[in-house]
Amino acid sequence: MLDSQESGHCIKVLRHRAGDTIHVIDGCGNLYECRIVTADAAATRFDILNVVEGYGSHPYNLTMAVAPPKNIDRFEWFCEKATEIGVDTIVPLVGDYSERRVFKGDRCERILVSATKQSHKGAIPALEPLMPVRDFLARNFGSGVNKYICYCSDVEGAQKIHITQALSEAAGREFVIMIGPEGDFSREEMALAASRGWQIISLGDSRLRIETAALTAAAAVYLNCL
Amino acid sequence: MLDSQESGHCIKVLRHRAGDTIHVIDGCGNLYECRIVTADAAATRFDILNVVEGYGSHPYNLTMAVAPPKNIDRFEWFCEKATEIGVDTIVPLVGDYSERRVFKGDRCERILVSATKQSHKGAIPALEPLMPVRDFLARNFGSGVNKYICYCSDVEGAQKIHITQALSEAAGREFVIMIGPEGDFSREEMALAASRGWQIISLGDSRLRIETAALTAAAAVYLNCL
Repeated sequence: MLDSQESGHCIKVLRHRAGDTIHVIDGCGNLYECRIVTADAAATRFDILNVVEGYGSHPYNLTMAVAPPKNIDRFEWFCEKATEIGVDTIVPLVGDYSERRVFKGDRCERILVSATKQSHKGAIPALEPLMPVRDFLARNFGSGVNKYICYCSDVEGAQKIHITQALSEAAGREFVIMIGPEGDFSREEMALAASRGWQIISLGDSRLRIETAALTAAAAVYLNCL
Repeated sequence: MLDSQESGHCIKVLRHRAGDTIHVIDGCGNLYECRIVTADAAATRFDILNVVEGYGSHPYNLTMAVAPPKNIDRFEWFCEKATEIGVDTIVPLVGDYSERRVFKGDRCERILVSATKQSHKGAIPALEPLMPVRDFLARNFGSGVNKYICYCSDVEGAQKIHITQALSEAAGREFVIMIGPEGDFSREEMALAASRGWQIISLGDSRLRIETAALTAAAAVYLNCL
């Protein structure tokens, strides 16, 4: 059964009727081919004819942990475009140098749902609550996960490599990539990252805004994992 | 001498005075370190202390020929982000299936200038007038230029390869990439492209909006040419 919002859209906007075939996603990766039984604008009921698992899925698992910029529109753009390309989890971060220190996910959640539908995917990316960089750096991801942190400068004693090199050397296809705020990560955050086994990566020589850097990194993973 | 708009910004907004050092770009790739002689809000004069050629430049030449979507904000977003990453020329296209059949470049021009300054580059990308796809396909680019056209379907008798494969096989570092409108290029346009030596490329399995496809392609070139 469709919830009231989706039912309203289905019956009043799209003007479907009983007997029509519709395609429904569950947000977890599956697409259902369905036939409407009851065309109720508050509670549409349907029979499931067919299930496609992993509809529009991608052959990697990507978590993008990004410090939202002061202008939240830019973060919403990133959420939409990352969904089109293929992302699994988005974690908004607050770092030492973050200008934006609060984050409300309601609008981003709606954008993630509509971008998922528009780009013909079955799984809606998960949006986590705002998390301090230090806490995220300390999270346990499991041994098979490739953990990358983007940094514009260098960290003494730690190696920095270009993202394409990192991806070509990566083991498996699970990736977590961190993008810092306008002022980048702090030296203390980077020292913690290096000590916790995060690979420091470069996105090349261009000076990219937060959302551009984040999308470039996501595109790099997408283009690498054919 | 700065023009009246830049002079006004320099003296009234940034509040520079005679003797201050400023950095000026000429939009053609050069950055000038200057000292203000006359702090006139209509016509600021300065002495050039130092020139940096190819400031913030990138080691490739990229022309993105993109059919602007109906929503022009999305094309402006692409112009801004492509400038941050590194692009040389942007050509808006009108194709058989284009919804948008007129294009005014004023706002995009302003966005290209501000994105160039913001991302610390010396060269402003050139924005050409709207051009029909057929005319662009017939343009003569010279033998060393890699010409790619993105297409969601296949063209009988013509090979389609993934963009990363195309880039790895590319001769030289000059690229022209075409991105079609919402309905993609038509079969007639694709037949013409194949006959004119354009390599048909794929951007992978995701279903991307015009501006997302265009930025993914630009990012692919940027990431490939370290």
